[in-house]
Amino acid sequence: MKKVAIIMGSDSDLPIVEKTAETLKDFGVGYEMHVYSAHRTPKETTEFALSAEKNGFGVIIAAAGMAAHLAGVIAANTTLPVLGIPCKSASLDGIDALLSTIQMPSGIPVAGVAINGGTNAALLAIEILALSDEGLKDKLKEKRAKDREKVLEKDKNLNK
Amino acid sequence: MKKVAIIMGSDSDLPIVEKTAETLKDFGVGYEMHVYSAHRTPKETTEFALSAEKNGFGVIIAAAGMAAHLAGVIAANTTLPVLGIPCKSASLDGIDALLSTIQMPSGIPVAGVAINGGTNAALLAIEILALSDEGLKDKLKEKRAKDREKVLEKDKNLNK
Amino acid sequence: MKKVAIIMGSDSDLPIVEKTAETLKDFGVGYEMHVYSAHRTPKETTEFALSAEKNGFGVIIAAAGMAAHLAGVIAANTTLPVLGIPCKSASLDGIDALLSTIQMPSGIPVAGVAINGGTNAALLAIEILALSDEGLKDKLKEKRAKDREKVLEKDKNLNK
Amino acid sequence: MKKVAIIMGSDSDLPIVEKTAETLKDFGVGYEMHVYSAHRTPKETTEFALSAEKNGFGVIIAAAGMAAHLAGVIAANTTLPVLGIPCKSASLDGIDALLSTIQMPSGIPVAGVAINGGTNAALLAIEILALSDEGLKDKLKEKRAKDREKVLEKDKNLNK
Amino acid sequence: MKKVAIIMGSDSDLPIVEKTAETLKDFGVGYEMHVYSAHRTPKETTEFALSAEKNGFGVIIAAAGMAAHLAGVIAANTTLPVLGIPCKSASLDGIDALLSTIQMPSGIPVAGVAINGGTNAALLAIEILALSDEGLKDKLKEKRAKDREKVLEKDKNLNK
Amino acid sequence: MKKVAIIMGSDSDLPIVEKTAETLKDFGVGYEMHVYSAHRTPKETTEFALSAEKNGFGVIIAAAGMAAHLAGVIAANTTLPVLGIPCKSASLDGIDALLSTIQMPSGIPVAGVAINGGTNAALLAIEILALSDEGLKDKLKEKRAKDREKVLEKDKNLNK
Amino acid sequence: MKKVAIIMGSDSDLPIVEKTAETLKDFGVGYEMHVYSAHRTPKETTEFALSAEKNGFGVIIAAAGMAAHLAGVIAANTTLPVLGIPCKSASLDGIDALLSTIQMPSGIPVAGVAINGGTNAALLAIEILALSDEGLKDKLKEKRAKDREKVLEKDKNLNK
Amino acid sequence: MKKVAIIMGSDSDLPIVEKTAETLKDFGVGYEMHVYSAHRTPKETTEFALSAEKNGFGVIIAAAGMAAHLAGVIAANTTLPVLGIPCKSASLDGIDALLSTIQMPSGIPVAGVAINGGTNAALLAIEILALSDEGLKDKLKEKRAKDREKVLEKDKNLNK
Repeated sequence: MKKVAIIMGSDSDLPIVEKTAETLKDFGVGYEMHVYSAHRTPKETTEFALSAEKNGFGVIIAAAGMAAHLAGVIAANTTLPVLGIPCKSASLDGIDALLSTIQMPSGIPVAGVAINGGTNAALLAIEILALSDEGLKDKLKEKRAKDREKVLEKDKNLNK
Repeated sequence: MKKVAIIMGSDSDLPIVEKTAETLKDFGVGYEMHVYSAHRTPKETTEFALSAEKNGFGVIIAAAGMAAHLAGVIAANTTLPVLGIPCKSASLDGIDALLSTIQMPSGIPVAGVAINGGTNAALLAIEILALSDEGLKDKLKEKRAKDREKVLEKDKNLNK
Repeated sequence: MKKVAIIMGSDSDLPIVEKTAETLKDFGVGYEMHVYSAHRTPKETTEFALSAEKNGFGVIIAAAGMAAHLAGVIAANTTLPVLGIPCKSASLDGIDALLSTIQMPSGIPVAGVAINGGTNAALLAIEILALSDEGLKDKLKEKRAKDREKVLEKDKNLNK
Repeated sequence: MKKVAIIMGSDSDLPIVEKTAETLKDFGVGYEMHVYSAHRTPKETTEFALSAEKNGFGVIIAAAGMAAHLAGVIAANTTLPVLGIPCKSASLDGIDALLSTIQMPSGIPVAGVAINGGTNAALLAIEILALSDEGLKDKLKEKRAKDREKVLEKDKNLNK
Repeated sequence: MKKVAIIMGSDSDLPIVEKTAETLKDFGVGYEMHVYSAHRTPKETTEFALSAEKNGFGVIIAAAGMAAHLAGVIAANTTLPVLGIPCKSASLDGIDALLSTIQMPSGIPVAGVAINGGTNAALLAIEILALSDEGLKDKLKEKRAKDREKVLEKDKNLNK
Repeated sequence: MKKVAIIMGSDSDLPIVEKTAETLKDFGVGYEMHVYSAHRTPKETTEFALSAEKNGFGVIIAAAGMAAHLAGVIAANTTLPVLGIPCKSASLDGIDALLSTIQMPSGIPVAGVAINGGTNAALLAIEILALSDEGLKDKLKEKRAKDREKVLEKDKNLNK
Repeated sequence: MKKVAIIMGSDSDLPIVEKTAETLKDFGVGYEMHVYSAHRTPKETTEFALSAEKNGFGVIIAAAGMAAHLAGVIAANTTLPVLGIPCKSASLDGIDALLSTIQMPSGIPVAGVAINGGTNAALLAIEILALSDEGLKDKLKEKRAKDREKVLEKDKNLNK
Repeated sequence: MKKVAIIMGSDSDLPIVEKTAETLKDFGVGYEMHVYSAHRTPKETTEFALSAEKNGFGVIIAAAGMAAHLAGVIAANTTLPVLGIPCKSASLDGIDALLSTIQMPSGIPVAGVAINGGTNAALLAIEILALSDEGLKDKLKEKRAKDREKVLEKDKNLNK
């Protein structure tokens, strides 16, 4: 099975992507986690993106804050699906990262998730990989069923 | 090969998703296009989503404006990857659709693209399907090469 | 008298809707409170909405944060008046929930209140039910008179 | 049956509330339409609100742009449900009217609809009045069925 | 000399208007401070505005948060200059109050100051009253000179 | 009677301030109109502000777009009341000018009106000057009465 | 004298950067203009940036719209000053490009100008080059004097 | 070598500009730091700007919050490059300062950096001065190399 790459622009984004990593681990999906900055390590970021496919990755998740160029820079150098997590930073509540991530011009797509949406980025990667992995597909359905149960449990407890 | 579903919330979104359809056609990817509204046809929308996997779809693209619930409602009823296109409508310049599409709560992911980003939604779907289709992968790389050529051509013309 | 349904998308919205419940209790209006998620329990949410009328509900209040689809999904499945409370979450200060709740397309209305406006959603429901309940109407007028008194009391104290 | 009041802050809002009036007429709901400004005719606006209940109104719809105080000023003087339509004006794309309408402080509720949402304000009023009018309820369900048919028709035509 | 009225929509705005009161006191300008709500005490608010001129007021300062209608409602009932202070509340960082205060339609002006700008509202009132009061004008110039000195003092200390 | 100064940052703001001039003319208030830029003619702008009081001005109205510094720069050099009109320009719909005009730091107040609010700036100036001019006060009240009549006339025509 | 590079992300930005080129020409500053996309030609963009210094450039101006990564990507690959022009595109009025350009993380600076601020980007580049070119400095001062004259001329004409 | 001026509008901006000063010190670039307010000390601010060039300054950095006019006022009085740091204050998260700083009209440029971007303003100044100072250029390249090393180090540690 193809691996997932989790790239964060700065180690201050670690709390966000740890949720990504945890979710992937729960589903038994292999991943690698890296700190690569679009701005401070452009060469390494580019090289990672250029070789990601042949290194066995199937999906790349990029998390960055402020003028979040990371997902876009990676997407420019690979045809693998790139998922962008806009991270909230000290000002503007994440709207800068959200727009920098999602408003990509035609030709080079990035798939954006919610601000600080570390878990959903993992789930999206799993949904993509599950297209050719029935076992993963089953786990997704189990997770959905469990999530549903949790809500119904909470509903029941509320009404006791 | 799995098909792509293109669902629009209203036929006023047709000009946006026509770019999606065109791109898929250019890549030889099969698709079905439907008008289903999360609000006016909730049952049909839900049923479509619930049966999309067994009906041979691999990716679902949902385009909607205003309080764009379509992608979220579909994502709630399938574990296929769902891509959301926020459509610009008569007020607020698309920011309402963008936030309604992308700010999904943890558990049910939607992959958002730029406002009116019909072409990129198609390219993202193709990148996903190309993970298990080498031919498609090659076409993506050719498209990238051509896009690059076009930019360089424009650069050359500029400097004549 | 018809009951009011209070639906929250997640139990993290409980502090907001507790103010709704309290206000309804103060007015002697019967209510039921549920946790149903538009995304994690779409079937239960839909079924609740579809049967709300015959189960004796007169108004449905839906509280949700982020891409708040809950009120819209309920409204799509009932012709009872649906009131939406946009809840503030970890980023964007509630503007995402506000726009996702209120910017409904033509045909399926949702009545939005202020961000975290739990009390006003209850008062609105009471105003609606009071249209055919004189006793309730009187209580509303008493409440208005009391609220007025409180302001005037504060004004008096200020000037001592 | 109780009537609906449609109040607009300025006759420039007429195109928006004409959709409201049309919808009410389609449902056979009686209405009165007035131009009253919260700022230029505060006395008339207040008097209208104070006497609306005894004059046979069941719901008041208020449409205004910019610093849209109309719905709030009316709501302050009646315990009838007040629905606010934020109207888009020459700058800010309606966000000023939206926030001025919906961000009401606790105690005096206004039910907001989408920017320029004239039709939905009417439908909401009808849903409220239908709570004690079975005939109206049936018409709402027919309208929903027709709206659904229209979407499915469009879907069918698309795929011819 | 004419007095200044300081009206707050809720006693939660007291910390903001206390700065207003303090500044007026420093300048020896008479003032009255009241809690009047545009929504909970519309009659008292209107009556205050209608009689403000003959009660010896020269300027009215109105402070309110959220859908801040207070300044507009007062301005609708007086031809005295009305200054509005938009107050920051629990969500949206004051932008709702700012737009509700300042985006007044043509005909009924409100003079807005910065969010939570309690001191500047007082200074503006003083500038207005100083047009016919040389003593006050002199105090304004002294205050400007002192403020200037403070900045220059800070600059000097910085460079020690 | 004191005169009103109307300063525009650029002659592209002329259509906005023409409404200001017209309103002042209608009330018989003397005014001077100038093009002075905070950025391109800082010296002239400053000198105008510094000498405005002794040159017989009572109120200064400043209209500017984009990073609208004009009102603030003038206010920094006079203790006359300064009214700022934020002008809408080619992008951002006037919100840049609005915030640049109104968010003044403590000590140097500017009184902001609505985006492109040329008429209201004039009315505000007149309200200020009317504090010591009974004739002007009467004209303001007549204008209010006429505006009220116009609204009531429109209301009457609507219901014919 | 060092040259200025003008890079646009797409030839649709040409009308904006033509003003940049014109201004540079007026000042006799040499420049090269290129179409290089951060996303479609990442390699060429990077190579241009990496070799810009030794190719005789002193300042790089980058213009791009939407998720405007161009200035940041160039800045990551050079220590020359990089000026970013955020370009307005079909939605969001340029705020996406503004935040993507200016909210750069610590370490890799970009100097942003106003949305569509093609002329000012040129002037800024000239101010930088003029630090070691007295002739250029003189021309800047002449331009300032002329701009001042133009404003004063307009002021004079206004008052004829 | 030319010095850098660091001007802050208020000493509350000191924590932001201390990072500017520190970075300049690390690079051995001379600087002067001042508190000058565009509004409270307009004369001193203007005089500083007018004489900055002949006093040996090469770049001016201006930091201010709210309606941040400081950078613009300085730029209006010098042809030296002026860099503006928008500072976050008690409300609006810095967007007011950002727009007030960067949306400068054509003719008088200001180079904006990110909200609270004290370090990047220094680096930009250094990049500008380094155009005629090889030693400084080398230090910039060393800093870039070190920053890159730090990221790679963090990446390595992450994967232990």
